[in-house]
Amino acid sequence: MLDVDVLVIGAGILGVASAYHILKNNPSKKILVVEMYGGPGQGNTGRSNAMFRNTFSSRDNQILSNSSIDFYLHLQGVMKEDIGLQQIGYLWLMSESQLSSSEPYLAAMEENGIEFRRMDSTELKRLLSGVAMDGDGGGQSSLLRLPKVEGGVFGSKCGRLDPERLANFYAKRFVEMGGRFSFNTEATGLTMGPEKRLGIEGEPFVWQDSGVEGVRLRGAIGGELHPEAVVMACGAWTNELLDPIGVDGHVKAKKRQLFSIAAKGDALEGLAHAKGFNPLGLLPLVILPRAGVHFKPVSEENSFWVACEDEVNRPYIDIPEHDLERYPAESEYYEKGVKPILAGYFPAFARAKVRAMWAGLYSYNTVDFLPFAFREDNLIIVGGDSGSGIMKGDSLGRIVGALYGNEEEALLYGDVPYRVSKLSFERRDVEREEWVI
Amino acid sequence: MLDVDVLVIGAGILGVASAYHILKNNPSKKILVVEMYGGPGQGNTGRSNAMFRNTFSSRDNQILSNSSIDFYLHLQGVMKEDIGLQQIGYLWLMSESQLSSSEPYLAAMEENGIEFRRMDSTELKRLLSGVAMDGDGGGQSSLLRLPKVEGGVFGSKCGRLDPERLANFYAKRFVEMGGRFSFNTEATGLTMGPEKRLGIEGEPFVWQDSGVEGVRLRGAIGGELHPEAVVMACGAWTNELLDPIGVDGHVKAKKRQLFSIAAKGDALEGLAHAKGFNPLGLLPLVILPRAGVHFKPVSEENSFWVACEDEVNRPYIDIPEHDLERYPAESEYYEKGVKPILAGYFPAFARAKVRAMWAGLYSYNTVDFLPFAFREDNLIIVGGDSGSGIMKGDSLGRIVGALYGNEEEALLYGDVPYRVSKLSFERRDVEREEWVI
Repeated sequence: MLDVDVLVIGAGILGVASAYHILKNNPSKKILVVEMYGGPGQGNTGRSNAMFRNTFSSRDNQILSNSSIDFYLHLQGVMKEDIGLQQIGYLWLMSESQLSSSEPYLAAMEENGIEFRRMDSTELKRLLSGVAMDGDGGGQSSLLRLPKVEGGVFGSKCGRLDPERLANFYAKRFVEMGGRFSFNTEATGLTMGPEKRLGIEGEPFVWQDSGVEGVRLRGAIGGELHPEAVVMACGAWTNELLDPIGVDGHVKAKKRQLFSIAAKGDALEGLAHAKGFNPLGLLPLVILPRAGVHFKPVSEENSFWVACEDEVNRPYIDIPEHDLERYPAESEYYEKGVKPILAGYFPAFARAKVRAMWAGLYSYNTVDFLPFAFREDNLIIVGGDSGSGIMKGDSLGRIVGALYGNEEEALLYGDVPYRVSKLSFERRDVEREEWVI
Repeated sequence: MLDVDVLVIGAGILGVASAYHILKNNPSKKILVVEMYGGPGQGNTGRSNAMFRNTFSSRDNQILSNSSIDFYLHLQGVMKEDIGLQQIGYLWLMSESQLSSSEPYLAAMEENGIEFRRMDSTELKRLLSGVAMDGDGGGQSSLLRLPKVEGGVFGSKCGRLDPERLANFYAKRFVEMGGRFSFNTEATGLTMGPEKRLGIEGEPFVWQDSGVEGVRLRGAIGGELHPEAVVMACGAWTNELLDPIGVDGHVKAKKRQLFSIAAKGDALEGLAHAKGFNPLGLLPLVILPRAGVHFKPVSEENSFWVACEDEVNRPYIDIPEHDLERYPAESEYYEKGVKPILAGYFPAFARAKVRAMWAGLYSYNTVDFLPFAFREDNLIIVGGDSGSGIMKGDSLGRIVGALYGNEEEALLYGDVPYRVSKLSFERRDVEREEWVI
């Protein structure tokens, strides 16, 4: 049987960043990452929109994302690792009521030095080619009653990156330091055992101190491994392993969809290449004032990717299937739900066709919409990133590294100290996020 | 179809207390309670240990339980409703480390006027007939390594009651005021609908404001009802109805077991009738210093009921079966897990036999172990009481009443104001409970 000190379950962004930081802090440890798919970032990480922003209302989210973004900027800008990062920015188009309700959060961001600026409707109209500020561009205004855009907020330290390249960066460095992967390997269960085995059938009993003793595997590696510590970075699949041992993973999973639209025709091409937002001459991610519908330009494939917030009335999935093809994107959902909003503000989308679509699973922590990372004996659990695991991935990897080392504080990139118990549940101490897309 | 203003799902303690308080505040409303079992309190309420205490570390739990207990004392003492209440008290037997770690909580309870007193080992030995303070009464001390009892904490405003009688009290008064029940009626699903129906197939769309439009029923009443408001008081079954509409019920369910042991023989009879704790001349609920094992005397059936905390390694159940017989109590669990601890401190239990056992489902809110009550449009959700729904039932019923009336504050029994948003998730503002049994 393999000799493993630390077993990391999951090679999504949180798994690879955790494995990398644990190994970096503990170069002599034998660390194995098991992953049910064929490579790093091939599950929900690779299916994500992979946007990043530091414009959060929660101070904790600001810190976690800001430091990770700084690291990613350093990675691509100084270390010359091409992770497909484009700092295109985020642009919120807001109704009058949204502008006024967001004011306290903006004031707090200003105080914390978060980079953003307010934009008025004149400037927005000038910069956004073909925008229908009153939302009636689709000709269905009486039906949809979309709110008028009265202003906007532009976050400049925001953008997009390539999630698989980022996962591959951590994976490559991890392997260079001596870490190992086993792909196509599923963790099928955790085995609890007593701290001191007595040899009586039925152990562990309630009077014994117990913990995770083994991890059962199937696939490229089978059987049961007995590592010293286990890191769970299973995202939407967390409950599948934790429910049976009675540990709450604090995760609820839900399908989210992406629709790729060709940026064809003068109007859409012009929109994609909006000037005045960033040095790339690209449109930022644009968030519309209804249902969180948002879209971004994907310059290398000359398209837009469109998504929607989609909260109530989209089921939570208790124990999701492993085969993500079982969660297909739905063209009806785009045509009847998303497109009317999109075309309401940008009529050029009215006749544009979907050329590709796919779905993935968000894993939500709906208590406060912030990620968690905590330890139960020799089990470390990280997740609940609610769709923002990539933009906080480096910070969360460092926090898992600190948890593994029983340190009270993690040192995030840029020498930012962060008390790790803040992200636990026992001593949770975070500001709930109010700026959810 | 029935004409219903408010539909309450579930006639457990939280359902009946909520229905009662809503109707009391709104006498002209047509309120229907549907319940899948045959009467009030026939599910997990009736299977519970039905203990009550005000000795919590969390100020919020103190307030919620204290006011409910005051009401129950009034109910039995002044209104002469026999709810089987016996104020026997709670007695924690504590190890040295437990004594020192509980000191800050005790200090805070003292400050808040919570009734308790510290007891030293001499007094405990005198009052508890046959106690083995060092935990080696079962003759397995080298195996079990039970901690020595160094002292205790006795809460006097604590005790037991009959959960079905309490549920029946609310049910009877509710019916007297004109409320209706439909037993043997399952809620099988919630139907979402748009606020303004347009007649387009596929409604509600993401651009429509939507809410719960209907509740699908099966059993004594079938079909779909369309009440103005729906109160979900479904305990362990909350996810079954909320997951499909994408609302997080913040509940995880887990089996908990009770074992009834005859109080036969001089030693056990003597223990049951311990003097010096309460005017009834009965032993209080005794909590042992390992694994939360606890037992209480049930004087009317001359027995003890024994239970255990049983956290890690007891699975969470995502969507529990409706037939609670599918969750049987396990004699092995008692014999090999619970009894060794019990007999370690009270050797008279070593040869005592289990004469009845049963199980029920706890519905946990593992974030802070406090109940929640919140509103999503016309849906009110109450639960997550983590095994203490009965002892906070009256308060939670009043809070649901306030939520229904869109009031900011509930007036708990004894004219205690309580801000209802404290128990929501959006504006949750509670102290996490640290004294969990």
